[in-house]
Amino acid sequence: MRKIFYLFLTVLIAGTLWAGDAKDDANKIMKIIDKQVDAWNRGDFDGFMAGYWKSKNLTFQSGNTRRRGWKTLLAMYKKNYAGEKRGNLEFTDIEMKVLTDELVLVLGRWKVTTKEETKEGLFTLIFRRIGTDWRIIHDHSS
Amino acid sequence: MRKIFYLFLTVLIAGTLWAGDAKDDANKIMKIIDKQVDAWNRGDFDGFMAGYWKSKNLTFQSGNTRRRGWKTLLAMYKKNYAGEKRGNLEFTDIEMKVLTDELVLVLGRWKVTTKEETKEGLFTLIFRRIGTDWRIIHDHSS
Repeated sequence: MRKIFYLFLTVLIAGTLWAGDAKDDANKIMKIIDKQVDAWNRGDFDGFMAGYWKSKNLTFQSGNTRRRGWKTLLAMYKKNYAGEKRGNLEFTDIEMKVLTDELVLVLGRWKVTTKEETKEGLFTLIFRRIGTDWRIIHDHSS
Repeated sequence: MRKIFYLFLTVLIAGTLWAGDAKDDANKIMKIIDKQVDAWNRGDFDGFMAGYWKSKNLTFQSGNTRRRGWKTLLAMYKKNYAGEKRGNLEFTDIEMKVLTDELVLVLGRWKVTTKEETKEGLFTLIFRRIGTDWRIIHDHSS
């Protein structure tokens, strides 16, 4: 479990949300994120990708590339983070903004530590409620 | 005006939106973006910032830094892009996703060309309808 965890819950649309529901949703999303990190750290990229919308319309921007589709993203992770490159993943400085009762914006900082180096950067995730679950429909990581 | 402009309008919540309204909103947002680029290119950072939510809750992620607030962002632009550094700004590969009738996700590529160099990268913008206007409430540029 992460040691540093900041959760600032900002309800941007007052009146359309019950604070209790928003808190429940934030907790659900945090659990998904925790599971993703755990999956990454045991080398389970499919488990990591369970947090993402399983759709060809999923979008991901990183480096100088916009990628599209769940399968494309999974393939990228499997290729670019194979073996030693995967390292240990950690998310910190997480901040959630409830945009509507179906959309939550999650900001944070990622850090991947391998034997050789530490890489870190920021991420912007958009989670959408899909049925009873929440899934990332867009990811910008840099 | 930009020469290359791709607009993929993806209505993600069918049934809650009229296609005509979504198109009107997309056009309004494109006009705001065009005005921002024009403002940048004449050195008018206040005009560039007119597209952003004038709030201390505006968030901006870039490099290794999360910034917060309209004034903070304006000050950053004025400091980091003063004089020759401002260069010529161009946006391409723009893609819009209508998330709800109040929220639109805009993806794109930015390029700043100065006498010395060309820098480029990707951006993720979240536009929210605020009254009759649309404003950027979150920006991740990398």
